[in-house]
Amino acid sequence: MPAPIEFYFDFSSPYGYLASELIDAIAERHGRNAIWHAIVLDATYQSQDRIRIPTHMMRSEYVMRDVERSAGYYGLPYKAPAHPSLHTELAARVFQWLGDRQPQQARDFAHGVFRALFTEDRNIADAAVLQELATKAGMSEADFHTVQTDGTTKTRLKAEIDVAQARGVFGSPFFIVEGERFWGVDRLPQLERWLEKGPY
Amino acid sequence: MPAPIEFYFDFSSPYGYLASELIDAIAERHGRNAIWHAIVLDATYQSQDRIRIPTHMMRSEYVMRDVERSAGYYGLPYKAPAHPSLHTELAARVFQWLGDRQPQQARDFAHGVFRALFTEDRNIADAAVLQELATKAGMSEADFHTVQTDGTTKTRLKAEIDVAQARGVFGSPFFIVEGERFWGVDRLPQLERWLEKGPY
Repeated sequence: MPAPIEFYFDFSSPYGYLASELIDAIAERHGRNAIWHAIVLDATYQSQDRIRIPTHMMRSEYVMRDVERSAGYYGLPYKAPAHPSLHTELAARVFQWLGDRQPQQARDFAHGVFRALFTEDRNIADAAVLQELATKAGMSEADFHTVQTDGTTKTRLKAEIDVAQARGVFGSPFFIVEGERFWGVDRLPQLERWLEKGPY
Repeated sequence: MPAPIEFYFDFSSPYGYLASELIDAIAERHGRNAIWHAIVLDATYQSQDRIRIPTHMMRSEYVMRDVERSAGYYGLPYKAPAHPSLHTELAARVFQWLGDRQPQQARDFAHGVFRALFTEDRNIADAAVLQELATKAGMSEADFHTVQTDGTTKTRLKAEIDVAQARGVFGSPFFIVEGERFWGVDRLPQLERWLEKGPY
């Protein structure tokens, strides 16, 4: 099996949502696995001296329109959330917990979270909303409670984010294949070229 | 004739260079005119409260590699300039002077400037280099001297930049078609979709 596509995203990223709807088909077309990683691009992360997109840019009229048009371009449903900057840590912890056990459940959960936020304008920082989505993905109430209360899931997510930083991830969506970094859903064509023909 | 594609660029922009090599073929495929506009995205421009890309981002390892890979993706020659942040005002003034008289000469000059900077690492802030490129595009020595010394060409460029700002241009390359704004060479597929099928 050739090297997988590492797919990093933050649940608050609209371009991350678009990528989440596209990446598995791309991986499949090229006989690769996509490995999904939920991270949190919060202030702590951004205090690193890395590339970062200023928050006001994501709220600009241009980007709001660009996301909407990009969704139309990919043929994906999209509804702008009323509150675009939600805390995504609990969602990422649930994703990580599932991912360490049942990657397919984690992926189902991730789709649920992204679609809840970007097609139904639901508050994915709300634990009740997350629990509903986790249940749909097959997680038990007891396990959800564990993630909420057990500090080890926080530590586990932190370690995952540290790995992302160490690999040079600085945005969402972000892809790494064979060490090559691709930032943004608009780099998927370049990623596909890489998968087809190798380095260029 | 349907509405033209307005194409804005700064000569120091590597993604602007890539776009300059692609835009005319796109316009032709869709029976449109491309109207080229050289602008200067300097500190004055950026003091406006608009979206802006931090300078250090353009110099990051990621963006350096992204430009190189993007050039490979489009099949265009590229050589990273030793000094990526050059003053582009004189080049833009020469472009504007030609554009107000002979748009095709202006375009030839723009190609010359972009290729000199991004394939030969020449200093396009140097008046002697610019004069050589202007001569190749068919500009007389006397006219080049006029642009260098006559304040009206500065005023003319300033007015062009004011128009760009008023239209909501904030980066390079930047495209406007029928009021819709597209930022970045990576938005050309979305621009083409617009040209093919109209608004979405």
